[in-house]
Amino acid sequence: MVTAVASDVKVLGSWTSPFVMRPRIALNIKSVDYEFLQEEFGSKSDLLLKSNPVYKKIPVLIHNDKPVSESMIIVQYVDETFTGPSILPTDAYERALARFWAVYVDDRWWFESLRGVAAGKTDAEKATALEGVTSGLALLEEAFEKLSKGKGFFGGDTIGYLDIALGSCLGWIRVTEKFSGTSIIDETKLPNIYAWSERFCSDPAVKELMPDTEKLFEFANMLFAKTSGAAAAAPPK
Amino acid sequence: MVTAVASDVKVLGSWTSPFVMRPRIALNIKSVDYEFLQEEFGSKSDLLLKSNPVYKKIPVLIHNDKPVSESMIIVQYVDETFTGPSILPTDAYERALARFWAVYVDDRWWFESLRGVAAGKTDAEKATALEGVTSGLALLEEAFEKLSKGKGFFGGDTIGYLDIALGSCLGWIRVTEKFSGTSIIDETKLPNIYAWSERFCSDPAVKELMPDTEKLFEFANMLFAKTSGAAAAAPPK
Repeated sequence: MVTAVASDVKVLGSWTSPFVMRPRIALNIKSVDYEFLQEEFGSKSDLLLKSNPVYKKIPVLIHNDKPVSESMIIVQYVDETFTGPSILPTDAYERALARFWAVYVDDRWWFESLRGVAAGKTDAEKATALEGVTSGLALLEEAFEKLSKGKGFFGGDTIGYLDIALGSCLGWIRVTEKFSGTSIIDETKLPNIYAWSERFCSDPAVKELMPDTEKLFEFANMLFAKTSGAAAAAPPK
Repeated sequence: MVTAVASDVKVLGSWTSPFVMRPRIALNIKSVDYEFLQEEFGSKSDLLLKSNPVYKKIPVLIHNDKPVSESMIIVQYVDETFTGPSILPTDAYERALARFWAVYVDDRWWFESLRGVAAGKTDAEKATALEGVTSGLALLEEAFEKLSKGKGFFGGDTIGYLDIALGSCLGWIRVTEKFSGTSIIDETKLPNIYAWSERFCSDPAVKELMPDTEKLFEFANMLFAKTSGAAAAAPPK
């Protein structure tokens, strides 16, 4: 779907980062061609340092030489700038709910729990983190009923803002399942999220971008080997 | 400007919280009457528990019985729902920049630095936090030049999204100045931010809401006395 053609849209990122996947999915939804500039692991390009001097982090979207940083801010920018299917709901209250849960995914669920399943220093810490992951997903399972209104995605008939926020994490959830030896997205306990995750991964805007679990697992193990322990198994934001 | 009349808009909050001030300023800008429901310190009302079951935190805006949580999400909701002056910039790129810096204020500047000036356990920790506060404000001083385009606010001629995000913290900056015995918003070092802070505090949408520094200082000291130390001197988000 996306070809690296000369274009006025560039994304600086890495295939391993869920946060980088977000703007790429948004651009796919809007059928915008862009150039993907892969940052080398362990180094930062001059373009990245110049484009995001505050955080020096991927992803960065560069549109007509103007950089935008922070994955969900980029998704909003893409939604507001390019024509095509709406990513945020059109209703203001539904927009607020989508934003609320997207912040929950990042601030509470990912950073306080998902990272900890691999990064926990003790088995007890890892178990607590895993408990946080599953209880967070139980909340999202419930939210799905309310937000999707019987349709296939949090955003309704098509992938929306919260779908992108959570769905971009699915590759790392699968890696975390391998690390922990448990089924996190359990078909029986989380039927909504389970079916949604299948739909999300096979969506044309997503499927080429979702990393292969084995390859991502290898990458995570390489990170283990390069760092002092499991602390870096989940990628930085 | 705002009177506690029967209305379909309610704000659950506390006068001491900068995060609560945000939706209130937004509602003032839009000339929306609302009922302010003060949460008692140390307890949570049934309405709060019901309205924000995930975080159980203020502020919550309740509009026609529908709750919205997270201060800057509420500000966006208010902007998108009520007529009146725009709070977010109308240009998509400028909106992205305002959102970027507002996230910076919350995630990096407030939580990693401002809280630490009082909450640091050692003098060295406090000094590091104070250094973070001043270097963060130096970045915002620079951003002001770019975003305000020679006008009085980050948002241009009138108070906008980033003005609300940062300006709501001014009461706690002044309390932090008292705790640390230093001038944080120094007229010589931060001329833009200094002049902006004066304009912000005297704006009709803000001036009745900005807490008196002495009163807030007393509240902070009360918090010290009730908790094990300085860790709680800055309010939770």
